[in-house]
Amino acid sequence: MNYSIIIYILGWILNVEAVCMALPCVTALIYREKAGVAFVITIIACLAFGIPLVCRKPSKKAFYAREGLVTTALSWIVLSIVGAVPFVLSGAIPDPIDAFFEIVSGFTTTGSSILKDPSLMPHCINIWRCFAHWIGGMGVLVFILTLLPLAGGYHMNIMKAESPGPSVGKLLPKVQATAKMLYKIYIALTLLLIVLLLLGGMPLFDTLCAAFGTAGTGGFGIRSDSMGGYNMYIQVVITVFMILFGVNFNVYFLILTRKFAQAFKSEEVRCYFLVILVSALIITLNVRDMFENIGIAMQQVFFQVGSIITTTGYATTDFNQWPAVSRTIIVLLTFCGACAGSTGGGIKISRLLLMLKSVRKELHLYLHPNAVKKIKMDGKVVSHEVMRATNIYMIVYILLMAVSILIISFDEFDLVTNFTAVVTTINNVGPGLSLIGPTGNFSIFSPLSKLVLSFDMLAGRLELFPILILFLRETWKKF
Amino acid sequence: MNYSIIIYILGWILNVEAVCMALPCVTALIYREKAGVAFVITIIACLAFGIPLVCRKPSKKAFYAREGLVTTALSWIVLSIVGAVPFVLSGAIPDPIDAFFEIVSGFTTTGSSILKDPSLMPHCINIWRCFAHWIGGMGVLVFILTLLPLAGGYHMNIMKAESPGPSVGKLLPKVQATAKMLYKIYIALTLLLIVLLLLGGMPLFDTLCAAFGTAGTGGFGIRSDSMGGYNMYIQVVITVFMILFGVNFNVYFLILTRKFAQAFKSEEVRCYFLVILVSALIITLNVRDMFENIGIAMQQVFFQVGSIITTTGYATTDFNQWPAVSRTIIVLLTFCGACAGSTGGGIKISRLLLMLKSVRKELHLYLHPNAVKKIKMDGKVVSHEVMRATNIYMIVYILLMAVSILIISFDEFDLVTNFTAVVTTINNVGPGLSLIGPTGNFSIFSPLSKLVLSFDMLAGRLELFPILILFLRETWKKF
Repeated sequence: MNYSIIIYILGWILNVEAVCMALPCVTALIYREKAGVAFVITIIACLAFGIPLVCRKPSKKAFYAREGLVTTALSWIVLSIVGAVPFVLSGAIPDPIDAFFEIVSGFTTTGSSILKDPSLMPHCINIWRCFAHWIGGMGVLVFILTLLPLAGGYHMNIMKAESPGPSVGKLLPKVQATAKMLYKIYIALTLLLIVLLLLGGMPLFDTLCAAFGTAGTGGFGIRSDSMGGYNMYIQVVITVFMILFGVNFNVYFLILTRKFAQAFKSEEVRCYFLVILVSALIITLNVRDMFENIGIAMQQVFFQVGSIITTTGYATTDFNQWPAVSRTIIVLLTFCGACAGSTGGGIKISRLLLMLKSVRKELHLYLHPNAVKKIKMDGKVVSHEVMRATNIYMIVYILLMAVSILIISFDEFDLVTNFTAVVTTINNVGPGLSLIGPTGNFSIFSPLSKLVLSFDMLAGRLELFPILILFLRETWKKF
Repeated sequence: MNYSIIIYILGWILNVEAVCMALPCVTALIYREKAGVAFVITIIACLAFGIPLVCRKPSKKAFYAREGLVTTALSWIVLSIVGAVPFVLSGAIPDPIDAFFEIVSGFTTTGSSILKDPSLMPHCINIWRCFAHWIGGMGVLVFILTLLPLAGGYHMNIMKAESPGPSVGKLLPKVQATAKMLYKIYIALTLLLIVLLLLGGMPLFDTLCAAFGTAGTGGFGIRSDSMGGYNMYIQVVITVFMILFGVNFNVYFLILTRKFAQAFKSEEVRCYFLVILVSALIITLNVRDMFENIGIAMQQVFFQVGSIITTTGYATTDFNQWPAVSRTIIVLLTFCGACAGSTGGGIKISRLLLMLKSVRKELHLYLHPNAVKKIKMDGKVVSHEVMRATNIYMIVYILLMAVSILIISFDEFDLVTNFTAVVTTINNVGPGLSLIGPTGNFSIFSPLSKLVLSFDMLAGRLELFPILILFLRETWKKF
């Protein structure tokens, strides 16, 4: 294991996180909040460790898949531990496990909260919670990649480990250029969203929090009623942008480079919009009597469907009260997730498509045992490795869910609470059903359960393997 | 498609079913029940169609995997439709959909019932319900294989389609000899169980019903309290035999041929006993305060654990009242299922083992990208085809579950009822939780839901592909 490079990158994580914490510091200054001191202390500590670590260039050059996975996992753990410190120091969330849960939920863009009423928190705490979504959405390592002057191997192995979806497409010949392009699109869309929300009369502070949460598909609310209190224009804008941030960013790149035909042919994106449309229509028919008229019902349903499929997790209404069909669709969408290469979580539409195609291929093989049939996506043959990784992903996903549910069940809540708590965290969605529905929160769980759910959030965001590999004795052996 | 051979085998199905119905006829004679007339009418009708069909030897010889799958699926559908006729004719279960659900639940060894109180049914109806478990347990086509004078290709392709588990091991060089051996072991174990139950003072009729249900790992009760009313000796005997019938029958064959070392090395069987032991111990600790003493608690828990993991579904206590941890373990065991090559359902221990091994291999590949590592089971390399089929199986399994839960949810019951109804039927277990717990029944569902659940039972028993392939347009094309 090449420890020198791992420590070097962890140093960068500390420095970048210190810079990011400038935003809550400024917020604290504006609102004259004492909690800002906690951020200043954390920044100083980060830089005190971080700057010396990045001063020494790593000696060994070897950097393989193993290093990529371990670096990614450790980076996210360090990021989360450091990110939780201001919560504890400021006394906003005094319990360290609660603070860790909250910031993991932030960085992994989950949005599950242990806070009963976030509107009681200082502004600097709330902006840090929401900014964590934005940092975690596109990936902090992808951001560092845009800065580091390292050779190719590093980049690809880190980007593979941190980016969501079954496979990473290199948009540009150089990985670093791809990372820069992704961040440019990400920033441009976020700025556009901020402008549109400000035009709708949303206060600047609320706008920033909502924009960060929407862009990262996170979902932390800063009011106890999530997005329910804002006007319809704002809700519609957020609906549209949640869905836009769930689209594979490759498509935006194709549109920017004027490859429109290729962009509109993307099977994943077409399927994504189809699923949203069909789900929303069924639910609208199912719940129309609960709203004043069909228009409002449709607007509310599209918000909730967009929020859940992109794994954002904002709510404008309590879908825990909806009939069983609608709740079932909501739970199924939780699993589904957004597109690969977006900021959303879940299983991802492309994985589901690949699985459906492999089933069709298997049935075909029964009928024509000697036929040679390749699985294709967007016209290209999908490699055997990607298919195997997709299958293994599903297996690990199910096993992790089963084990997590079992541990959580020791808290003796009802089965729907336990089941949806694990499902919503592993898929980085946010709200569940029953006790942890849109109006509930995660403070009810025991410290052990909170740690398990934090683990699930990290495993879900990093797509399981980087986190799992930390627990393999073999990983730490010399060879 | 070779229709002549399919029709020939369907003819055999009708004849064998007619012979099987002799048992309820005799029962009706003994108890002087009018319902017996329904069975006589059905037998006559079966033979009237069946005998002409088997008189003509099939003209074409071609019989491939496709024919094997289609034959198996159609056989089970014909078996079920015909088996439901006496229920309707006798007026015991007047609604045809209810009758179909009940007999599918019988043949697939599920044991979910739409009856509120089975003790109110005539004896001949109850023995037919339980005998269906015994017929379906080892598989009716496997039985027909022992009779038919056909060449090799037929046998293997049918046995592959009907036998549970990821792959079929040929115990003897000839498939037909293997089928005979399996049935001999099956009959011998059933007879032993009958003797032991009679020694415990169980009435003959109850003994036969309980023995058929235990051997087939079915689980239809003939009393409203399932097995709760019998004495402890009988409950212990049934516990032991449920677990024995969940063991891979290959192990019994190895023991019979004195290959003890090989028998005791079976990874699947060791793992099976380990899961039973660990689950039972955790649950015992969790529920000990609900019973008089730890001994009774342990006996009750082992019964329930054995009943669920083997997918039998008998109950002696209402585990719906147990704490959340125990209920969660019960739900997880429902998925787990027994060994491949047993009469039990579920995912099967060997599939779970293969999946765990493939995950370990994948993680290993991340660490050593160039290593060549084969997955082994009992010391033998597992072929790529078996691994792929296992993965695809899991995908289809999850997709079928999701679609079924969605359709069932239109009945507007709670999520736990909907979820466990699908889980318990697709895994051929029997009881679920909430409204369909050990004290509830499936009559609450709408006709559409009952059909969906019947479909799930058949798909679960035949391990998905034979049933799914019927819906592929390609299957019915000429080529």
